[in-house]
Amino acid sequence: MNYPIIAYVLGWLLNFEAMFLVLPLITALIYGESAGWSILVTILLCLVPGVFAIFCKPARKQMYAREGLVITALSWIVLSIFGALPFRISGAIPHMVDAVFETASGFTTTGASILTDVEAMPHCLLFWRSFTHWIGGMGVLVFMIAILPMTGKGSDMYLMKAESPGPSVKKLVPKVKYSAVVLYEMYIVITIVELILLLIGRMPLFDALLITFGTAGTGGFAILNTGCADYTVYQQVVITVFMIAFGVNFSAYYLIWKKRYKEAAGMSEVWSYLGIIAAAIALITWNISSMYTNIGTALKDAAFQVGSIITTTGYSTTDFNLWPSLSKGILVTLMFIGACAGSTGGGMKVSRIQILVKELVKELDYLVHPNTVRKIKFDGKQLEEGVQRGTNVYVGAYLLVFTASFLIVCLDNFDLESTFTAIAATLNNIGPALGTAGPASNFSTFSDLSKIVMTFDMIAGRLELFPVLILLSANTWKK
Amino acid sequence: MNYPIIAYVLGWLLNFEAMFLVLPLITALIYGESAGWSILVTILLCLVPGVFAIFCKPARKQMYAREGLVITALSWIVLSIFGALPFRISGAIPHMVDAVFETASGFTTTGASILTDVEAMPHCLLFWRSFTHWIGGMGVLVFMIAILPMTGKGSDMYLMKAESPGPSVKKLVPKVKYSAVVLYEMYIVITIVELILLLIGRMPLFDALLITFGTAGTGGFAILNTGCADYTVYQQVVITVFMIAFGVNFSAYYLIWKKRYKEAAGMSEVWSYLGIIAAAIALITWNISSMYTNIGTALKDAAFQVGSIITTTGYSTTDFNLWPSLSKGILVTLMFIGACAGSTGGGMKVSRIQILVKELVKELDYLVHPNTVRKIKFDGKQLEEGVQRGTNVYVGAYLLVFTASFLIVCLDNFDLESTFTAIAATLNNIGPALGTAGPASNFSTFSDLSKIVMTFDMIAGRLELFPVLILLSANTWKK
Repeated sequence: MNYPIIAYVLGWLLNFEAMFLVLPLITALIYGESAGWSILVTILLCLVPGVFAIFCKPARKQMYAREGLVITALSWIVLSIFGALPFRISGAIPHMVDAVFETASGFTTTGASILTDVEAMPHCLLFWRSFTHWIGGMGVLVFMIAILPMTGKGSDMYLMKAESPGPSVKKLVPKVKYSAVVLYEMYIVITIVELILLLIGRMPLFDALLITFGTAGTGGFAILNTGCADYTVYQQVVITVFMIAFGVNFSAYYLIWKKRYKEAAGMSEVWSYLGIIAAAIALITWNISSMYTNIGTALKDAAFQVGSIITTTGYSTTDFNLWPSLSKGILVTLMFIGACAGSTGGGMKVSRIQILVKELVKELDYLVHPNTVRKIKFDGKQLEEGVQRGTNVYVGAYLLVFTASFLIVCLDNFDLESTFTAIAATLNNIGPALGTAGPASNFSTFSDLSKIVMTFDMIAGRLELFPVLILLSANTWKK
Repeated sequence: MNYPIIAYVLGWLLNFEAMFLVLPLITALIYGESAGWSILVTILLCLVPGVFAIFCKPARKQMYAREGLVITALSWIVLSIFGALPFRISGAIPHMVDAVFETASGFTTTGASILTDVEAMPHCLLFWRSFTHWIGGMGVLVFMIAILPMTGKGSDMYLMKAESPGPSVKKLVPKVKYSAVVLYEMYIVITIVELILLLIGRMPLFDALLITFGTAGTGGFAILNTGCADYTVYQQVVITVFMIAFGVNFSAYYLIWKKRYKEAAGMSEVWSYLGIIAAAIALITWNISSMYTNIGTALKDAAFQVGSIITTTGYSTTDFNLWPSLSKGILVTLMFIGACAGSTGGGMKVSRIQILVKELVKELDYLVHPNTVRKIKFDGKQLEEGVQRGTNVYVGAYLLVFTASFLIVCLDNFDLESTFTAIAATLNNIGPALGTAGPASNFSTFSDLSKIVMTFDMIAGRLELFPVLILLSANTWKK
């Protein structure tokens, strides 16, 4: 294990975190909030190891898959702990476990909150809380790779692979650095478009910024105690459209941008994703229509909640806890499906479900006609054996992590629906669950142990399990 | 597709069903019950196509995997429909959907019941209901293979494979016919031992027989409205021990019988199974101890419920719906794990979980050290690629069937816990769920559509999905 490179990257990570914290610091100055001091102290605490790292360049910058995975997992843990300091130091969240939960929830774009009164938070901390969504959405290591390649030739690919969601990582362009740059360029452009549309809809700048951060990262931290229920229909529609847009595989945008329309139209994952969304909206609208006087409002609420849950954003305009079972069942199913690979959304990803279905169809075919060829195709190309194996192992690992977490959180003795959906909401990076931690409630009532388990699940879910599980494997640390 | 052989085997199947129905007919004669007429009518209805089949031997007796899978799936459907006739004709269960649900629940050893008053049933029908558990436990096609090989050379293996539970089928002895004979010999011997021990414990013969059928097949139909709560401690302990015993891979008994102790001791699946049981009993006893004045009673109830659920039997001595969340959570987890492969129990099977864990450990190892060999070993032997693939596809198929069933049953608008566990209880062939269909309740309140879906799930679960899914696949029926 190349320990110097791990320390080096983590040091730089803290420099970047300090840099990100400058924005909420400015917010504190604008609003004249004393909580700004806690941000300043955190910046200094980040810079101590950060600056030290700059002067301790590792002798060997080359690294391998192992270091890539370990760095990625550690980065997200370090990021969450240091990012929690402003909340803890200012006293806005007096308990460290809560503060780390909230921050990890931010960076992993989960949006699960332990706050009982969001509106009581100072602006600067609210800004930081939502800004973590934006940073975590596309990934902080991807950002670092785009700005400042730190490791040896080809090594950055390991970081990019470990941090990017989906069963396989396609580089948009041959060079990793430029892939990262292109991703962030598109990310920034779509973010700005949403911001402008919300401003046109007369949302105040501060609110528009924070809601946009939450949409772009598919995070979902609300800034009003009523969630998104009080926004105008226009604003809710804009948010719906952009939640769904940020759940699309960014490769599609790249292809459209490069006018490679035919290739873009051939991305079956995007079509499946949109098809699932349309079907879910139709079914839920039909199912809840009797609760509404106006079918249009039912459609709007159904679309908002479907877009919010499948992309694992987690905003809500209504308490879907009160919906009939079919609608709740569909939302729980969407929680697991998740968005597209290569988007900012979480969950298992549509392409993994596609691979599972293709495997099943192929296996049934094979059982009936044992002489058929056993290769699976995806978008016209043969699926790599490693991707297929990785998907299968992912599903197994997912079930194991889910079950272990579920049993530990059962100790809190909430009903099974609340416990089950709380794990689903954190492991899939969604945010609100059903029952105890439903959209009209929060995660504050869980025990510290449960909060630690769910913090682990949020990070494990965001990094798609393997980097975090590798941290726990004894084999990783052997010479 | 060799249609004549399919019709031929199905015809013989009905002859066997007629033969099995002779026992409840005798019961009707002993108790002088008029419901016996409905059994006699059913026997005649079975014999019409059955005798016809005997005289229409297929020209070509050879068959392949495709026919084996189709025959197996159709056999279980035909068996359930004809087996439901005594209930329907006698009027004991006036609605055909209910009667088929109850019979499929019997044959698949699920034990989910739509009866609100079990004790009102005539003895002969209660006998038939529990006897289906015993027949379904080891498998009716396996029974037929043991008695009367009907198909061409080597073809019986396809039936045995399709009907026997577990990721791979090990023949105990080289010949399929004798494997089937040995399995049924052991099955009968252990059944008789349990029966004798219950009789020693002063259980009336009729009750002892029916409870033994339910234990042996890991079925779980109770014959008292109070389930197993009113039996003595001795009787409950005997049932607990035999439930767990029938969940053990029968290969272990064969090896012990042949004095191949070392091989028997090397069966990691059995050790894992017993380890999971011990851990679950310990945790639940600790978790529920405050509800009991006597730790011994808590231990007895915990052991009974754990043995009942992990083997997917479904008997209960207490309403575990009232237990704390951790205990309920553990039971739900056990519902999915299930018993050993090659036992009469259902669920995913312990060996599948072992394979998933081994795959995960290997994958983590591989990610860290990409040069390691990727082979997985199981009990000292290298795991066949087909078995590993089959396990992965099984998990994917399982999740898809589960989700589809869950969403349809959500239409009944019960709470999610009831709906979720009702699917878990039927797809895993357990019986009681939590909530609406909990151990103190039954499945009568679900809609017809839900009952049909759950009947499908019971058969799909018993046959481990593939045979039933193949029936639904268009590819199967192509020339």
